[in-house]
Amino acid sequence: MTAKRNLKRFFAPRNVAVVGASATKGRPGRVVIENMRANGYAGNIYPVNPRGGRLLGMKVYKTIEDLPSGIDLAIVILAAQATPQAVRDCAARKIGSIVLVAGGFAEVDHAGEDLQEELARAAHETGVRVLGPNTAGHISTPADFTSSFFPLGKIPKGGISYVAQTGNFTGAMMKHIMSAENYGVARCIGLGNTVDIDETDVFEFLATDKHTDAIFFYLESLRRPRDFIEIARKVTPKKPVIMLKGGATPDGAAAALSHTASLGSDDRILDGALRQAGVVRIDEFSHLFLAAKAAAPMPVPAGNRVGFVSPSGAFIVHISDLCRQRLNLTFPNLTKKTMDRLKEISPPFIRLSNPVDIFPSATVHGMEYAYREAMEAVFKDPNVDAVVSIMILTKELGMPSLDFIPELAAKYPKKPLYISFSGDHACNEEAKAFLEPRGVPTFPLIEDAFKALDILVRAGQALKS
Amino acid sequence: MTAKRNLKRFFAPRNVAVVGASATKGRPGRVVIENMRANGYAGNIYPVNPRGGRLLGMKVYKTIEDLPSGIDLAIVILAAQATPQAVRDCAARKIGSIVLVAGGFAEVDHAGEDLQEELARAAHETGVRVLGPNTAGHISTPADFTSSFFPLGKIPKGGISYVAQTGNFTGAMMKHIMSAENYGVARCIGLGNTVDIDETDVFEFLATDKHTDAIFFYLESLRRPRDFIEIARKVTPKKPVIMLKGGATPDGAAAALSHTASLGSDDRILDGALRQAGVVRIDEFSHLFLAAKAAAPMPVPAGNRVGFVSPSGAFIVHISDLCRQRLNLTFPNLTKKTMDRLKEISPPFIRLSNPVDIFPSATVHGMEYAYREAMEAVFKDPNVDAVVSIMILTKELGMPSLDFIPELAAKYPKKPLYISFSGDHACNEEAKAFLEPRGVPTFPLIEDAFKALDILVRAGQALKS
Repeated sequence: MTAKRNLKRFFAPRNVAVVGASATKGRPGRVVIENMRANGYAGNIYPVNPRGGRLLGMKVYKTIEDLPSGIDLAIVILAAQATPQAVRDCAARKIGSIVLVAGGFAEVDHAGEDLQEELARAAHETGVRVLGPNTAGHISTPADFTSSFFPLGKIPKGGISYVAQTGNFTGAMMKHIMSAENYGVARCIGLGNTVDIDETDVFEFLATDKHTDAIFFYLESLRRPRDFIEIARKVTPKKPVIMLKGGATPDGAAAALSHTASLGSDDRILDGALRQAGVVRIDEFSHLFLAAKAAAPMPVPAGNRVGFVSPSGAFIVHISDLCRQRLNLTFPNLTKKTMDRLKEISPPFIRLSNPVDIFPSATVHGMEYAYREAMEAVFKDPNVDAVVSIMILTKELGMPSLDFIPELAAKYPKKPLYISFSGDHACNEEAKAFLEPRGVPTFPLIEDAFKALDILVRAGQALKS
Repeated sequence: MTAKRNLKRFFAPRNVAVVGASATKGRPGRVVIENMRANGYAGNIYPVNPRGGRLLGMKVYKTIEDLPSGIDLAIVILAAQATPQAVRDCAARKIGSIVLVAGGFAEVDHAGEDLQEELARAAHETGVRVLGPNTAGHISTPADFTSSFFPLGKIPKGGISYVAQTGNFTGAMMKHIMSAENYGVARCIGLGNTVDIDETDVFEFLATDKHTDAIFFYLESLRRPRDFIEIARKVTPKKPVIMLKGGATPDGAAAALSHTASLGSDDRILDGALRQAGVVRIDEFSHLFLAAKAAAPMPVPAGNRVGFVSPSGAFIVHISDLCRQRLNLTFPNLTKKTMDRLKEISPPFIRLSNPVDIFPSATVHGMEYAYREAMEAVFKDPNVDAVVSIMILTKELGMPSLDFIPELAAKYPKKPLYISFSGDHACNEEAKAFLEPRGVPTFPLIEDAFKALDILVRAGQALKS
């Protein structure tokens, strides 16, 4: 069996055992079952607990040995010491895939290191594939499935996949995505201590996963950098691969050692190789969501030439500085045709160019007309790869109809459109609630729209090459 | 009369004329009066309009000449061409302070340049002090006053003052502060084209203004860099002075030229001088609010040594990288006393240090107890100058009582405390709505708490020197 074939069971298990199932509210052994049910998991769930009896309406098996045959995946929620034996028991019962939730291994102390070695031996000797230990589980929305023990509820489906060397992404981070963002996820994997399955195994699976449109990594180390790079070369021409690597500095690396017992490779060497392989490295945690929000509904930009419609000269000045100093974005000259059209919609004494200072035009013609016409003119321009527009929205000025924005996005499907705001918080929230479910990402901070675009432009460069 | 004495009239006018007052809803000549009323301005307002009659219950004067004597300030809302004469008329009527709202001067074309020169001559020859032209007005909450023509409503009072070479700050930006933030402002000045009053005049006023605790600049040029630096040297040991300078790059400078007709000085030379004078330069527009939010309720940190309480090892790794790469913050070793206390509140196999990974302790003792005890231990530590704490809040885990957070802030008033979040958006908003009115700033993005702290640490270095 290849690694890939084995991983398929993790992401589409026909049925699953929960070893260490619990009736107690809030305990991982119960929450994991509640999460599966909340997501409409259609397979059978087999709880295992030495006390037996029934749990949430299901029969509880006293031992792994008692389980029926044909189980694809076991989620093992036991104390660290009990896990090596549990792996051997699962193997004996022909369960080939295991998620190991417990912590208390190499990330803690020397005794934990020994235990982790024993666990690795058990996995190696039995041939069972193990995710973890020290993982908060994984998510696979195409299979309506999760092994997360963090109370989640129904996870929205979409094309973004996360691979993280921290449990956060199937916990608090997923809650953030579910409550603050309007994009959905395909797969989400907390790698934990990678006693067996590592980032490269998962990368290989996601590479050909038709449900995954873009892959986001949070890693503190690469166990097999050569293999990883090799896969990256094949994947990045097809879908964006974006990575935050923790431990890039000595201070971060020291913290990573106590977090996931990771010993990072030399970051500078790795950095060059990743870049060459088309992996886009980012340097802020929140950009893992910012770039996903931009990537999920919009095409990857074909280039870095931005048409920028701004209600303020100061924003144009500041964003010009930002792009020059830190972002690989340019504001191209527009064609004569575009310039002529912009002139038509402007007061007589104004000479519009790119970036387009829309304020005088909006004052004369109203916000809706001025923005729509200017944005369409810029969309049409062959020199422009992407459009960013900042709107001033306040109760006192009155909310304009925003229908034209998703209409423009649909009319020019090859160029991404991002919207940012200035003004009244409630109006901005209202616009976000209208635009994002209609496929137009919004950014409350003006810089963020450009930072997100910069990341996707870099991903687009790999797509072309 | 010194410049300062003249500026006092701008910030505390006993009465004011509105030249170009209008009865039409939404017109600047009406909105400016509505804004004054919404803020409870107690002085007399004298509308001027050639049509005469009455306006919002007030007598309208047909000409400036007709106005009664003893008027401190005129807000002139006329077409550009009419402004030089209006300045001379005001001078004749012994009105010594004027806000000139109109645009259409040097930022537009050569005719505008000529007009601006004529205006400068009128101001110079009459001795009248002029703010603008091309300004959206100013705000002075200690006087319940504003000359802004952007519909604002009641502006919250506080110790933050803004000086901006853009009209935004008395418009959309003020709406942002009013609706999204929980801090208040003292003075806010849109400089416009600085035909007379410039950033240095305003700086001189704010330097000794007892209502201003921290000064934020958005500038695209410095007209009198030497004078500015001289004032900065005196002010920065007393209050934070924070500046975003637009046009720092050639692209930004080109944009600034068409925005406010500013020709920037050589940025590198200026940068060194500003730094030496204790001015903290920032490089993102949104940091003008981020740092204000942090500065308004909290003390300026005495140093850069942060006690960091985190619910995730990944955050510790990432923030360690961020601090090492881009921020001047450190995570000091804690005293033995603090370490012993942290050990007491932790599960037996955990060795806590700084940053404090609070997750295991929160799992065992509950979030409220673990955070309170860990934060207090860190607050007490003499090696720590500031405390940042990230909380995971979700509906499913249940909101803990947050009373202990403002209690701790009050108990350790010399060390700033910033809170950040991970998890459920609604819970984070609820925590923000509870904490910020109680004086504890919150940051939805984890990086932002540290970016804000870094800015205030730099301001603190000037305070000490």
